[in-house]
Amino acid sequence: MTSQNPVFIPGPTNLPEVLRKAIDMPTIDHRSPVFGEILKPALDGVKKVLKTTKGQVFLFPATGTAGWEVALSNTLSAGDKVLAARNGMFSHRWIDMCQRHGLDVTIVETPWGDGIPADRFAEILKGDTGHQIKAVLATHNETATGVKSDIAAVRRAMDDAGHPALLFVDGVSSIGSMDFRMDEWGVDVAVTGSQKGFMLPPGLAITGFSPKAIEAIGQATLPRTYFDIRDMMGSYSKNSFPYTPPVGLINGIKVASDMLLAEGLENVFDRHHRIAEGVRQAVSAWGLKLCATSPKVYSDTVSAIYVPDGFDANQVVGHALKTYGVAFGTGLGEVAGKAFRIGHLGQLSDVLALSGIATAEMVMADLGLPVKLGSGVAAAQEHYRQTAVGTQRKAA
Amino acid sequence: MTSQNPVFIPGPTNLPEVLRKAIDMPTIDHRSPVFGEILKPALDGVKKVLKTTKGQVFLFPATGTAGWEVALSNTLSAGDKVLAARNGMFSHRWIDMCQRHGLDVTIVETPWGDGIPADRFAEILKGDTGHQIKAVLATHNETATGVKSDIAAVRRAMDDAGHPALLFVDGVSSIGSMDFRMDEWGVDVAVTGSQKGFMLPPGLAITGFSPKAIEAIGQATLPRTYFDIRDMMGSYSKNSFPYTPPVGLINGIKVASDMLLAEGLENVFDRHHRIAEGVRQAVSAWGLKLCATSPKVYSDTVSAIYVPDGFDANQVVGHALKTYGVAFGTGLGEVAGKAFRIGHLGQLSDVLALSGIATAEMVMADLGLPVKLGSGVAAAQEHYRQTAVGTQRKAA
Amino acid sequence: MTSQNPVFIPGPTNLPEVLRKAIDMPTIDHRSPVFGEILKPALDGVKKVLKTTKGQVFLFPATGTAGWEVALSNTLSAGDKVLAARNGMFSHRWIDMCQRHGLDVTIVETPWGDGIPADRFAEILKGDTGHQIKAVLATHNETATGVKSDIAAVRRAMDDAGHPALLFVDGVSSIGSMDFRMDEWGVDVAVTGSQKGFMLPPGLAITGFSPKAIEAIGQATLPRTYFDIRDMMGSYSKNSFPYTPPVGLINGIKVASDMLLAEGLENVFDRHHRIAEGVRQAVSAWGLKLCATSPKVYSDTVSAIYVPDGFDANQVVGHALKTYGVAFGTGLGEVAGKAFRIGHLGQLSDVLALSGIATAEMVMADLGLPVKLGSGVAAAQEHYRQTAVGTQRKAA
Amino acid sequence: MTSQNPVFIPGPTNLPEVLRKAIDMPTIDHRSPVFGEILKPALDGVKKVLKTTKGQVFLFPATGTAGWEVALSNTLSAGDKVLAARNGMFSHRWIDMCQRHGLDVTIVETPWGDGIPADRFAEILKGDTGHQIKAVLATHNETATGVKSDIAAVRRAMDDAGHPALLFVDGVSSIGSMDFRMDEWGVDVAVTGSQKGFMLPPGLAITGFSPKAIEAIGQATLPRTYFDIRDMMGSYSKNSFPYTPPVGLINGIKVASDMLLAEGLENVFDRHHRIAEGVRQAVSAWGLKLCATSPKVYSDTVSAIYVPDGFDANQVVGHALKTYGVAFGTGLGEVAGKAFRIGHLGQLSDVLALSGIATAEMVMADLGLPVKLGSGVAAAQEHYRQTAVGTQRKAA
Repeated sequence: MTSQNPVFIPGPTNLPEVLRKAIDMPTIDHRSPVFGEILKPALDGVKKVLKTTKGQVFLFPATGTAGWEVALSNTLSAGDKVLAARNGMFSHRWIDMCQRHGLDVTIVETPWGDGIPADRFAEILKGDTGHQIKAVLATHNETATGVKSDIAAVRRAMDDAGHPALLFVDGVSSIGSMDFRMDEWGVDVAVTGSQKGFMLPPGLAITGFSPKAIEAIGQATLPRTYFDIRDMMGSYSKNSFPYTPPVGLINGIKVASDMLLAEGLENVFDRHHRIAEGVRQAVSAWGLKLCATSPKVYSDTVSAIYVPDGFDANQVVGHALKTYGVAFGTGLGEVAGKAFRIGHLGQLSDVLALSGIATAEMVMADLGLPVKLGSGVAAAQEHYRQTAVGTQRKAA
Repeated sequence: MTSQNPVFIPGPTNLPEVLRKAIDMPTIDHRSPVFGEILKPALDGVKKVLKTTKGQVFLFPATGTAGWEVALSNTLSAGDKVLAARNGMFSHRWIDMCQRHGLDVTIVETPWGDGIPADRFAEILKGDTGHQIKAVLATHNETATGVKSDIAAVRRAMDDAGHPALLFVDGVSSIGSMDFRMDEWGVDVAVTGSQKGFMLPPGLAITGFSPKAIEAIGQATLPRTYFDIRDMMGSYSKNSFPYTPPVGLINGIKVASDMLLAEGLENVFDRHHRIAEGVRQAVSAWGLKLCATSPKVYSDTVSAIYVPDGFDANQVVGHALKTYGVAFGTGLGEVAGKAFRIGHLGQLSDVLALSGIATAEMVMADLGLPVKLGSGVAAAQEHYRQTAVGTQRKAA
Repeated sequence: MTSQNPVFIPGPTNLPEVLRKAIDMPTIDHRSPVFGEILKPALDGVKKVLKTTKGQVFLFPATGTAGWEVALSNTLSAGDKVLAARNGMFSHRWIDMCQRHGLDVTIVETPWGDGIPADRFAEILKGDTGHQIKAVLATHNETATGVKSDIAAVRRAMDDAGHPALLFVDGVSSIGSMDFRMDEWGVDVAVTGSQKGFMLPPGLAITGFSPKAIEAIGQATLPRTYFDIRDMMGSYSKNSFPYTPPVGLINGIKVASDMLLAEGLENVFDRHHRIAEGVRQAVSAWGLKLCATSPKVYSDTVSAIYVPDGFDANQVVGHALKTYGVAFGTGLGEVAGKAFRIGHLGQLSDVLALSGIATAEMVMADLGLPVKLGSGVAAAQEHYRQTAVGTQRKAA
Repeated sequence: MTSQNPVFIPGPTNLPEVLRKAIDMPTIDHRSPVFGEILKPALDGVKKVLKTTKGQVFLFPATGTAGWEVALSNTLSAGDKVLAARNGMFSHRWIDMCQRHGLDVTIVETPWGDGIPADRFAEILKGDTGHQIKAVLATHNETATGVKSDIAAVRRAMDDAGHPALLFVDGVSSIGSMDFRMDEWGVDVAVTGSQKGFMLPPGLAITGFSPKAIEAIGQATLPRTYFDIRDMMGSYSKNSFPYTPPVGLINGIKVASDMLLAEGLENVFDRHHRIAEGVRQAVSAWGLKLCATSPKVYSDTVSAIYVPDGFDANQVVGHALKTYGVAFGTGLGEVAGKAFRIGHLGQLSDVLALSGIATAEMVMADLGLPVKLGSGVAAAQEHYRQTAVGTQRKAA
């Protein structure tokens, strides 16, 4: 009898009622004009969420991982050099994808818990006087560690070096939840998925391409058909799709964008920050540490929390599911077994965040961790109370 | 952004996913045999939930209030005497209904917070040597005060007096959540609604009639057509309905009964008791008092909680809704402004109960009540932890 | 594999997608202000659909049958005289209800297939110089025979007689589908249900009371509590409900009213007329007769069709269901076995009407009726083609 | 008011109620054991639908087009030779994909309307004594022309030539609707999508790999990450997914497989054949011709119908949508403007097929085509009547 418990994984998020209905559509003819009335506002809505007026948006029936491949295969050729930092499981996987596509990756190994070292990027880019590096890859929010990187700083590093490489940003767990500025930060390809800030089920890779990235297509020789944005561009111009589109999900993107924009993106970001900060207050009250090493890299969509030495973070996650019917995230890669994660993105309310915090407390007490029942809850409650006035905006 | 918060009102309950889908049906022909395949198991399921093998079940497109009227109008005539205790808003309303139908009610005024005084009933019934009293009305669980009455004791009082009156029981907020035994307790008409223990939206008055109650129909002269169980009996025998049935809701009753019976009624009652006890531990940790005056009358579906003198319980409810998007129940009638209510029936989990308790704490702190943040949560957590093993049965 | 076939019963109708979602709501607190934001526009919407500015609307969790009882029990007293015509199963049942409530019914027996004989009413009313008749009952659209009556003519008969009786109209299968004018026709109580013109599942009795009907409440002594509009009036003034409201269905009424009014009531009526006329062209091409004796009484929501002598209309209905998975309506009462019914109300399109007509042809051919395959379809096609331009208005 | 009209496009199909609910799931943790309880039976179900016991099934969040790419990129290397016939738009596109991936395609140009010329394949394969051809591509059912090819014959051609090439079959619009035998026909990669025979929305590319195809992975050097079945194999062995899975759709595959297998695949095929044959009888009665040149290549999922010279098939489709709210398919590629398509796959019933046929008649009459109203309907009715007994199996 626990199916109504919210999930506390860092995506897919809990589904807002309105979006659940938006995607639950009877079949329509995707070759009829009705489809254009869904596709066009969906694309326009995503542009606004990405804060781009110059870029173009492409939606692929796929996941965020495919979005990485869309970025690479449309703009690069085998043997091309790219620059990336490895500071968590998702940056690691993107690097792996580059290598499997025959790209030559300059990897900046970075402590898991730190953000992208923009200064190190600057040095490397300055040293690349021949401009062999064709693309810089940046993971905006490392979902594995709850670490946010400073994309504006990466852009500055590129500009300071006068380097013409493209800037690809994985915003899978940031876009629509945390501050993201495609045009202002000079992002050439932005990647996200339907199941995070857009609060939908997985099934759409969402990508934004700058004019410069679109220009790069001509020279790119990595093979692609399903992920070829030329086919998308051609079809979009006729309000159609190069293959059968998932109409319901695209309608979901339209409605989700409307929701986010009606609430106001800055309000959406503030709301996420408020919920996240409550979770962090709880962590602090428990005497535990975040993977994220400093406030400036704290993620507002997910917190990865170290358990004390001698305890197994995977047990926390397993026990929570089995005993209380609550899903937290396990640690991944280097922090597997050492940390567990509380996802707090999407429409999660303060009230539901408290149920997650309370559950984590019960679980840790059950497993013998030195955590006082109610302590984290009280810290979070205090934060939510202090910040409650005027923060309960209605978006759905 | 609070639409995913659970409600903590004492019904309608939060809708289980499975039931939400069970009632969301395309239109079928209710005069076709398909309807019988829904109606029959629904009636059979309710019989099992009521624990009756001798009685018959009738479902009216209406609410629990109508169920009271079904009981009265099918068995009584204007001028008939009935006996009832007034110990809360819902018993008060049933008495009012009797009076509006021209019945002569012997009212036993009872402190709100106490259960039905079976000994007082015994005296009155013994005194009624001419058996003028045709029916005894008993509210099993006073939703307004969170007070459970002892129906077996009422039956004993009747039996001890050798009194032939019919026994009508309002089980609206008990049946399907708390121990109820129609045959064993000699209940002649049992009344409930779809939106409580059956966890559905409102829209069905559910009644169970004993053979003796059915026999009483012949003499009853209160006018009735829509609520006439003779029409129901005639139609049911042909797997049909006397007017257009709400097929989706009836299908919901079928599926809800299956869920409750698959879990096991005793397990359902234990589950409710466990959740309720956590709430009561929290109330105790807060230093507050329940309306219910002693553990033997504590309700496992709703707790009515007095706020300290000088505070307004309605403000608690209003502030919770406005600031945190959480619905509690206000006090009604005599306890209006003095108590607020936390509903904890249906599929509410321990995890979600904690979010309600945590919210109540924030609200009370905001309003200046002397309640320590986290205190009630910690008490409830302790209870839920201690009782967790083996209680997470899966019914949906 | 036939669950997607539409139904062709005269209500409940096929559910429009938008309404299905409108009623599928998570639980909200019906005592919170959110409820008022649903109830108020629902009541206002119904007033517009009824074309009344002076009347008040009351919604009961019940069915249309209960609406009849609401009309009677709120305005009349046992022994009161009422006048009614019996020309079909539903007028028959309303008369039966009157008698079971102790009313004295003057019954004008009318051939099933004819409308209410307003001239006969006029005579009777003129003869009732003492104004003993307190109410005139009129079934606007006899769902059993597909016969529409002229309510304006009934009103004229009353006015010509200078008779002060109340006029009650059963508009269950007309309101929201066929022309209905509460104020203009001087209707005192209008009755309908959620499952016909409003295209929702059953579960709400919808009633409109004129000021004169409301005034009559004071003297009415028929017992009532659940159906007492005084409790409704008191609660509505506080944006609340006298008992637990079916919030989802009420939200459905709000959205359905919006749909009907956005399309325009006259357009809705025209749309129904066009679909109905296609069905009638088919019946004519088959060489069969309608129960309705002349075009001026043809119903635009349901057609009752006589099968030739020697054939059993119930077999038509049974065979259609069993062999083709399609639901038609059986004949009721006097026309049982002699006629079957094709319901064509709600959002049924011309295209789906053709599937019903085509199915009826297959069924009749299977059973040996002298009907040529494709003949009725061709006649209906011709009508739909001729009337197609400009009729495909979009309401959902 | 036409949203309830079924679509007559050759996929996505009309959604069965049961499947619509199966995919509409609240978020679950896809890293929890619950996911395995959905994934495993989904994979097993697809294997049974493909009729393979030796092969493995892989589900990609993507569309059928991606399934083609999965086949190519996991087994082939740039420069590899493949053999394919071009006899319609979809075989054309698959060939185009091969070329964009640097494969060397031997194209057998085939009249649109004919099936794959297995004898021509045999010659070419026999001539390829050095076994340069690595794969033979076969489109089982050309959705563009309504032409079925004989895959068993292609396999015989390969075997007769003693040729070791892999056999890839596009079964997008055949699998789950028409006879398909992966093991028996020696299919090495079978490709389909969720939105055809599985009756779900688009969003999943469904592929089956034979052991031989899996063996080929090692040598294949086409770059791939998102579509790499090695990652799928690794994850499936742990009941997980290499990236975020669309849990709802996968649950849909599970339930859809159950539905198809419960009905019995042969019954499913018979059902499709019966519906299709009715459509073909109508076409014949209209005096029109199918693209498919002979009964042995007639598709049971879609019929492409030539309009007479001087008429524009696109107008048929456009007018149907605009005037009657019904979606047919346009002709594609070589038959654009010359043919329109009626899709008849999925759970379409005979009754609904008749509404599509009736609509096509109205449209053609409106546009001046020499088609008699009711003529096609009558022919189809006759077929449906004759074949009705025992064919109405219940699968949902």
